[in-house]
Amino acid sequence: MSLLVVGSTAFDTIETPHGKAERCLGGSSTYFGLAARLFTPVRLVSVVGEDFPAESRSMLADRGVCLDGLEEKAGKTFAWHGRYSADMNSRETIDVQLNTFGDFEPKVPAHYRETPFVFLANGSPKTQLSVVEQMTSPKFVVADTMDLWIDIEKDGLLQLLQRIDGIILNDSEVQQLTGESNLIAAGEATLALGPKLVIVKKGEHGCFVFGQGFRYALPAYPTTAVVDPTGAGDSFAGGFMGFLAHSGDVTAASMKRAVAYGTVTASFNVEGFGVDRLAETDLKTVEGRLAELMQLVDPS
Amino acid sequence: MSLLVVGSTAFDTIETPHGKAERCLGGSSTYFGLAARLFTPVRLVSVVGEDFPAESRSMLADRGVCLDGLEEKAGKTFAWHGRYSADMNSRETIDVQLNTFGDFEPKVPAHYRETPFVFLANGSPKTQLSVVEQMTSPKFVVADTMDLWIDIEKDGLLQLLQRIDGIILNDSEVQQLTGESNLIAAGEATLALGPKLVIVKKGEHGCFVFGQGFRYALPAYPTTAVVDPTGAGDSFAGGFMGFLAHSGDVTAASMKRAVAYGTVTASFNVEGFGVDRLAETDLKTVEGRLAELMQLVDPS
Repeated sequence: MSLLVVGSTAFDTIETPHGKAERCLGGSSTYFGLAARLFTPVRLVSVVGEDFPAESRSMLADRGVCLDGLEEKAGKTFAWHGRYSADMNSRETIDVQLNTFGDFEPKVPAHYRETPFVFLANGSPKTQLSVVEQMTSPKFVVADTMDLWIDIEKDGLLQLLQRIDGIILNDSEVQQLTGESNLIAAGEATLALGPKLVIVKKGEHGCFVFGQGFRYALPAYPTTAVVDPTGAGDSFAGGFMGFLAHSGDVTAASMKRAVAYGTVTASFNVEGFGVDRLAETDLKTVEGRLAELMQLVDPS
Repeated sequence: MSLLVVGSTAFDTIETPHGKAERCLGGSSTYFGLAARLFTPVRLVSVVGEDFPAESRSMLADRGVCLDGLEEKAGKTFAWHGRYSADMNSRETIDVQLNTFGDFEPKVPAHYRETPFVFLANGSPKTQLSVVEQMTSPKFVVADTMDLWIDIEKDGLLQLLQRIDGIILNDSEVQQLTGESNLIAAGEATLALGPKLVIVKKGEHGCFVFGQGFRYALPAYPTTAVVDPTGAGDSFAGGFMGFLAHSGDVTAASMKRAVAYGTVTASFNVEGFGVDRLAETDLKTVEGRLAELMQLVDPS
């Protein structure tokens, strides 16, 4: 089944202990799209400026990311410059220019409105809700969020959680949202807020899934070659939603498999700067690493 | 097969956000022994003072912990007083009185020297090595250690790693030992130092096992009822070594199963102050929780 993502498109300048990459293609919708297209065609809703090059468009389109919903506005594309700490567990923003993304009001094209699977990348809950309201009758809607929205727009986020099927959060966000320091208690409390599915991401420690009638814990793929963590969360979400949309089924078994694909897809992403490694990966390579991950957790 | 543990016996005063417990029976050998005895008889080598009560002796002996190697010396038993932070992820030592444990030189009784499975609880690598040298031809020797020994006796620890089969470390210790910040790289580097088995414990995130020809990642049992983390590491080691000694086999499959038993045994321990919860647990209860953990990680 088809899959829609609504999020940012950006140019990122990234500094990590492994080097510096300038004006790489980035943004949540791009990372998500390049991950999800491994499994199913992806429809992208985002905004760029007049500086967005034809090569970036064709790189995405050639890989199965439909850009009918990529609006081009007067001005420049969102630009971000960040620097990671030595252990890459934290980062500082050196510069951020929202540009055309500053007043992004997603408009879902008419021929996208019946898309069954929808991912709302990080954005204000109000903007995310506006997308839900444009869809005809989506089968499965999942959102990402961040500390900022829990701080300044918590009511909107709680309202959104009543309208969507799943949410993906990291460990500190789920603790902030619920006030529970124990991650299991925090995940359970989030599930009680309305969604059918809560995925708590724990970086190198993997993730914990709280679903209707099931719980699932999966370690991360044990990569030692982390070069650039940018987009890890969006590529996880892309692998997860991509497989789910491909399978067309939202049973516990399908979600567990999708979480494993998300884990593996994210492990490729962090092994290169920007979207480079994701863009060159194919499904066969992903399948190979999935088999390794399943071996790693096999208790027999 | 039988199992020997060499370590401390203590009286602990413990303060956590859930309350305070005074002069509880504790020490690494006690936590380990009460965990391991669920699976196999345990032989304990430790030291206490004249204040060690008959009730504590009979509590241990009644549960299958042989105390022929528990030396009683003039003076008092090791006493520790600690206080945990609000999230229980760190603790401060309020008072420590080494007493009779201060100059502990473990003497393995003659009838213990052929014990096939041996656990060297946290202690100086020199002392741990002295135990190895007293054993006839042990089948599988595993050691614990701590940051202090990596700081002040690293050469001794590296020498010990050449003489034993396995080591259990937590995440910060394995990073300190190897200088690798990536946990996977740090575990691999430790394996290259000599042992056949390296277990890296990650607290609420579970553990990662590096063995000969296999790797295994297992999440923690998802308890929300942590009351007192004291002894979590020793009860994990006790469940692990207890099952391994019971099975008598050190294949990858047996070690994976043993890691799962260690995980579950530790989860009971942290649900009560001191050794209370461990002392009252039986194998049937442990088996029930093991089944839950296996369900949690089941990808199907």
